[in-house]
Amino acid sequence: MNGIIKPSILPGFMELLPSEQIQFNRILETIKDTFEKNGFTPMDTPIIEKTEILLAKGGEETDKQTYSFTRGSNNLSLRFDLTVPFARYSAQYLSELTFPFRRYQIGKVFRGERNQRGRYREFYQCDIDIISNRDLSIASDAELPSIMYSILSKIGLQNFTIRINNRKLLNGFLKSLELSDITGVLRAIDKVDKIGSEAFKNELICLGICSDTVDKIYSFIILQGSNEEILSVIKKLDIDNETYKAGLNEIDEVSKLMKVFGVPEDKYVIDLKIARGLDYYTGTVYETILDEYPELGSICSGGRYDNLAQNYTKEKLQGVGMSIGLTRLFYVLKEIGLLKGEEGSTLTKVLIVTMDKNFEVAIAVAANFKNKGINTQIYFEEEKLNKKLNYANKLGIPYVIFIGENEVNNKRLKLKDMNTGNQLELSEEEVIKFLLAVGK
Amino acid sequence: MNGIIKPSILPGFMELLPSEQIQFNRILETIKDTFEKNGFTPMDTPIIEKTEILLAKGGEETDKQTYSFTRGSNNLSLRFDLTVPFARYSAQYLSELTFPFRRYQIGKVFRGERNQRGRYREFYQCDIDIISNRDLSIASDAELPSIMYSILSKIGLQNFTIRINNRKLLNGFLKSLELSDITGVLRAIDKVDKIGSEAFKNELICLGICSDTVDKIYSFIILQGSNEEILSVIKKLDIDNETYKAGLNEIDEVSKLMKVFGVPEDKYVIDLKIARGLDYYTGTVYETILDEYPELGSICSGGRYDNLAQNYTKEKLQGVGMSIGLTRLFYVLKEIGLLKGEEGSTLTKVLIVTMDKNFEVAIAVAANFKNKGINTQIYFEEEKLNKKLNYANKLGIPYVIFIGENEVNNKRLKLKDMNTGNQLELSEEEVIKFLLAVGK
Repeated sequence: MNGIIKPSILPGFMELLPSEQIQFNRILETIKDTFEKNGFTPMDTPIIEKTEILLAKGGEETDKQTYSFTRGSNNLSLRFDLTVPFARYSAQYLSELTFPFRRYQIGKVFRGERNQRGRYREFYQCDIDIISNRDLSIASDAELPSIMYSILSKIGLQNFTIRINNRKLLNGFLKSLELSDITGVLRAIDKVDKIGSEAFKNELICLGICSDTVDKIYSFIILQGSNEEILSVIKKLDIDNETYKAGLNEIDEVSKLMKVFGVPEDKYVIDLKIARGLDYYTGTVYETILDEYPELGSICSGGRYDNLAQNYTKEKLQGVGMSIGLTRLFYVLKEIGLLKGEEGSTLTKVLIVTMDKNFEVAIAVAANFKNKGINTQIYFEEEKLNKKLNYANKLGIPYVIFIGENEVNNKRLKLKDMNTGNQLELSEEEVIKFLLAVGK
Repeated sequence: MNGIIKPSILPGFMELLPSEQIQFNRILETIKDTFEKNGFTPMDTPIIEKTEILLAKGGEETDKQTYSFTRGSNNLSLRFDLTVPFARYSAQYLSELTFPFRRYQIGKVFRGERNQRGRYREFYQCDIDIISNRDLSIASDAELPSIMYSILSKIGLQNFTIRINNRKLLNGFLKSLELSDITGVLRAIDKVDKIGSEAFKNELICLGICSDTVDKIYSFIILQGSNEEILSVIKKLDIDNETYKAGLNEIDEVSKLMKVFGVPEDKYVIDLKIARGLDYYTGTVYETILDEYPELGSICSGGRYDNLAQNYTKEKLQGVGMSIGLTRLFYVLKEIGLLKGEEGSTLTKVLIVTMDKNFEVAIAVAANFKNKGINTQIYFEEEKLNKKLNYANKLGIPYVIFIGENEVNNKRLKLKDMNTGNQLELSEEEVIKFLLAVGK
């Protein structure tokens, strides 16, 4: 015989009690439903893939964080995001997909990060992308963040801001300064909010950029004001390169279209500090910050890319994508008290209690309820009535039905409202009408 | 620059094209919805757990098949089923759970099995269990297979049989023969359908059982007839031990109650060959066989257990559980042609096509449609009308709306039925009514 091992999970992994899980799933459903309402098709890829596929792009940080192992002669890895598998999938089934291809994917991804607040090593990502082998309208760049806006609003978040920038704009601006190491600058811009202005400027100086230019860069990226004000300032800058102009046009259009898509103007801002430096983005980029918890980082990010699947095919697939980090978002909602926990630990709407061992009637009534769409459970064990009511109470089952000899003979059911304590005697059909009327 | 790597996934992993994925998800939704209708609460556990937790029970086969690896000083494994994590979860949150606890869990599990037809290394399991720290009614043993029956029926399966046995019955019978190695016999019984009667008898003889007894065992396990006939035969056997009698009572009650739960009598049979020998079951056991494809093995199995979490707590948790192997089931449905593929490659109900760049109206109309619950997509790219219609056709989007200058001026929409080619000119409200009437 084995001894007893203390039950526990690994640090950095999220696990929920039933009442929390119900709330988590409700958010997941909202996301899924909104994606489908907007014409996105579900996709699923394996959690384990060939290491050479997942790490085809390379990148030291990613390589280090990825869970990799060997089995037999195979090098295997757990997916660390849903974008790389999507790129591989698009290349693999290229001839069978119809473009523009709109897919959503919701699933767990794995990163062996340092354990810190709100960061998990196994977490859900919820991705949408629209890709095409031809030109893809700039309208998609506005459509995606407006879908994300509607999701975040639906789940009860109020104080968040979608920050928008454009890599062409940033690249064009930096090009106009005739810098040699644009990547280094982008990397520094990416973290200016974290490290502060002094450290940022210092980093640029270390890259060999003279302090005049450093100041120009800093003034550009911290531009503040309404979207219209920022647009008007950056339009007037005397920068004459095609990249900058293209970026300007795009961000201008995206900003206007987001309004048309119904996003309130205080919910999205042009923020020239957003670089997403290490990514493959080439146009619009997004991050979403909780106004009161900027230190938690972005809960919904993404951008436009020119060549999604370049590691797997010569075919150029352009597109735009965004991703919600659901596990972190859930952690945040819990922290800031947006999950009220009034939901109970069950989805069951009604508990049927038999006063004798007359299961036949209880089972028939339950079948009828379930057919009508009511989540129903029968309490089969022989216990005192009090214990059964206590069970309903503890779980948060809102209604209890009693079936005893009297009820069977009179073809009536006794319905107890567990919140008010009120009892009604009704026919089966009346109970169904009642339960459907008070919501599922 | 990297070269191009041929996109592929590992052998033994399932990946679906959009039209198949839509069908897969529809089945998943049916399972989830039925579980919730029957009062089961959602649960989720990490995919990666501590190896010492997942392999606490031991078992050479499981150990070999499990994907294990180290990271830092930790020994990690991917879950190989949802039962062991459930046992760990129940022990870990014992004081916070309310019993009887009814949970469902749907998720991927991983087994590095030999690659063979219909077997996958990463596959979805869909589990339900009812556990309690007190006595749990035998009615649950009948409730679970009837829930599974209703799911299999709903997804269109017709020729399947739920096979039921009881470990007490089997143990009691073998005990009455005064055998020393009951486990060895159970293991042989478990595979008699695969290896045939000769090999089976031979295996028992190798265990040192005399041929008289071997014949007795064989005649017992291959008993055939209606459930009533089998029950009547095994009731008359002159076996006087408590285990046998308890098993007899249980299988009798389960058989009767399943009828009360509405399972047609030809859909469940008492099959004394079902042993599930290597498992922790102690009472009722189930397997579900496709009548025409018995060689594919069970697609839905489970049983009653006395002590779920014995490796993690001293508290005795008894219960009953069943699990659908969804990935294999989907493979089978595809193989036998039960997936007709008429569904198209999209969930989108209507494609909105603008005849100019008048996005404002298209976006407003789409928002209205989506609010009413209609999956809607706008085609933003500038292309010839023909190309746009072809896109709808290829994806299987059933309706297209045209919005041009005329339509905007007259506040009418042109609606084209892509199946019939018919066109109607309607108001926005009329279109919504129409689309809701033809189903989502």
